[in-house]
Amino acid sequence: MTDADGLARLRLIRTSSVGPVTFTQLLARFGTAQAALDAIPDLARRGGGSAPRIPSLADAEREAMAVQRAGGTYLFAGRPGYPALLAEAEGAPPVLSVAGDISLLMRPTVAMVGARNASAAAVRFARQLAVELSQLGFVIVSGLARGIDTAAHRGALDGGTIGVVASGLDIVYPPENEGLQREMQVRGLVVSEQPPGTEPHARHFPARNRIIAGLALGTLVVEAAPKSGSLITARLAADYGREVMAVPGSPLDPRAQGCNQLIRDGATLIQTAADVVEAIRPFASQVRSPTQGFELAPEPINGHDALALVEELLGPSPVPVDEIIRLSGASSGAVQMALLELDLAGRLDRHAGGKVSFRGS
Amino acid sequence: MTDADGLARLRLIRTSSVGPVTFTQLLARFGTAQAALDAIPDLARRGGGSAPRIPSLADAEREAMAVQRAGGTYLFAGRPGYPALLAEAEGAPPVLSVAGDISLLMRPTVAMVGARNASAAAVRFARQLAVELSQLGFVIVSGLARGIDTAAHRGALDGGTIGVVASGLDIVYPPENEGLQREMQVRGLVVSEQPPGTEPHARHFPARNRIIAGLALGTLVVEAAPKSGSLITARLAADYGREVMAVPGSPLDPRAQGCNQLIRDGATLIQTAADVVEAIRPFASQVRSPTQGFELAPEPINGHDALALVEELLGPSPVPVDEIIRLSGASSGAVQMALLELDLAGRLDRHAGGKVSFRGS
Repeated sequence: MTDADGLARLRLIRTSSVGPVTFTQLLARFGTAQAALDAIPDLARRGGGSAPRIPSLADAEREAMAVQRAGGTYLFAGRPGYPALLAEAEGAPPVLSVAGDISLLMRPTVAMVGARNASAAAVRFARQLAVELSQLGFVIVSGLARGIDTAAHRGALDGGTIGVVASGLDIVYPPENEGLQREMQVRGLVVSEQPPGTEPHARHFPARNRIIAGLALGTLVVEAAPKSGSLITARLAADYGREVMAVPGSPLDPRAQGCNQLIRDGATLIQTAADVVEAIRPFASQVRSPTQGFELAPEPINGHDALALVEELLGPSPVPVDEIIRLSGASSGAVQMALLELDLAGRLDRHAGGKVSFRGS
Repeated sequence: MTDADGLARLRLIRTSSVGPVTFTQLLARFGTAQAALDAIPDLARRGGGSAPRIPSLADAEREAMAVQRAGGTYLFAGRPGYPALLAEAEGAPPVLSVAGDISLLMRPTVAMVGARNASAAAVRFARQLAVELSQLGFVIVSGLARGIDTAAHRGALDGGTIGVVASGLDIVYPPENEGLQREMQVRGLVVSEQPPGTEPHARHFPARNRIIAGLALGTLVVEAAPKSGSLITARLAADYGREVMAVPGSPLDPRAQGCNQLIRDGATLIQTAADVVEAIRPFASQVRSPTQGFELAPEPINGHDALALVEELLGPSPVPVDEIIRLSGASSGAVQMALLELDLAGRLDRHAGGKVSFRGS
């Protein structure tokens, strides 16, 4: 059963305009999710907007029941069981629902991703590589999509594999993977950031990809066309300071060109499982315990003045929060607080690299 | 017609136990090839061996006539017309015979080499790449072998291409390339280090490969199995400080594994002609005029003492010449002279990286 703090966290993350970054800052500022929930209406009013819709306790209980019916349970960032590597990734999900063998999260992980329309040769290669990495003790993380993802999961099923879905835990997609996903919810692990009932929309895929990259010591791309989603996963892995690897192919095959470009950009060229182990080894020792990610300064917050200053400094173009702090002359804590208020009022957009802008109307 | 100095150089390089390094040192020591020829019997006697066989002037004239009959002419290291890039390579040939358009040696060059049993796709890719690099103004250097070499030459025939053969200028190998080689002796350029009549033996291939690597700003390997000759050419290019490039392929194809390994070792991954141009550009500005490669110290040579010291320090394992100089306490010039004498007496082996050893009996 989900405890009171868990239900409060669930209500907080499901509140409109509360994303992972805002969630983490609210928790850091107010100590508990419940205290943050209590403060939100006032914060939003100060930010100049109407209060966001906060799910009721009953809503949260209903979601928790649905996760349980799907055979799942929750993992909360900063609480025991949450995967340490993912916790280190910027914007990690505050709440995950997971079904299956959660002990897989404690073992060394490699992500394998690639084209949905992969060549038969690449599918065979991915499956065999997953078998071998499995036998070497690695857990294979992927996205339960067609093509390379499916091959990677199937190859690793006996040794341990984690599938991250863009939908809720109770939705199977693509339909032909129903058997695989059901089996992974018992012998492997299926992970979702979305509430049950969520269909896999295109807009959820980048968020799913960041979880794949965040869960793994390194990401291997097996076959990928230029501008494909697998390359986004690889870029996220690089952003998180993880190893990026790619399997080369003929420049005449468009499905290899994305991987070849990754290698040109510095990814490690992979031909064998031994190549993966060699590339991953330096990262395996760097796994640290979860971090808080954000700390407010202890000084008293001069909230009202800071809010006006920050509003003045913000525009439609993303600027680094550090720059706003510097230009405002206000304390870091006061600026962060002002940004929180604007965020909750629906007036702020947060971008990669700690940048913020006024939300476009 | 070959002049007297040219004929003397020809006699010197065709003397048994005179390789490119010894040739260069003799020329530096004695000023002219004729003076070196005159000194050889005495030097060999001091080195403790019998005098090597020196071809007669008539022998040299016969060779020069044969080169002329084959439509060729000579280029001598250190004299006008000798390719500047090749002159910079350690152990460059003192004498080349060439047939065709020698102005091609003045233009920017890229070597393209690869498997004789290349896949149809790789052959097509190599030919198309050669066409495009040609159109961009690059002269394509290769080895006139089957497979990738042939495709590279054919693609570059209109724009300019240089073929380096392991045989004499008058021998065609492989037989099916007779038409191509004849055409290149008119529209392109065919280069040989061997005297006319020399059949292409396996032992000549590494020497041929060093000329390919030495003539080019960079070497691109298109398809190559592990441990193939193309990888030797790539390693020589790296030794000469040139750009090394490789076209990737599926790890499932053994003919791609050598290229993939090159990329793992730092070669630039190539997918397009633009990739080659980008990789080569920094090297194009580094072309310098021919260097002498070796300078003897001006101090008086205490030859006899040095010879005894050097004989004592030499063993069957290769040691750097610098170390012998240091350990002997003799001048650099005296040690080099002693090594020359041992070399001409057939008692010295010279190895890569300026190392020497006593010749195994």
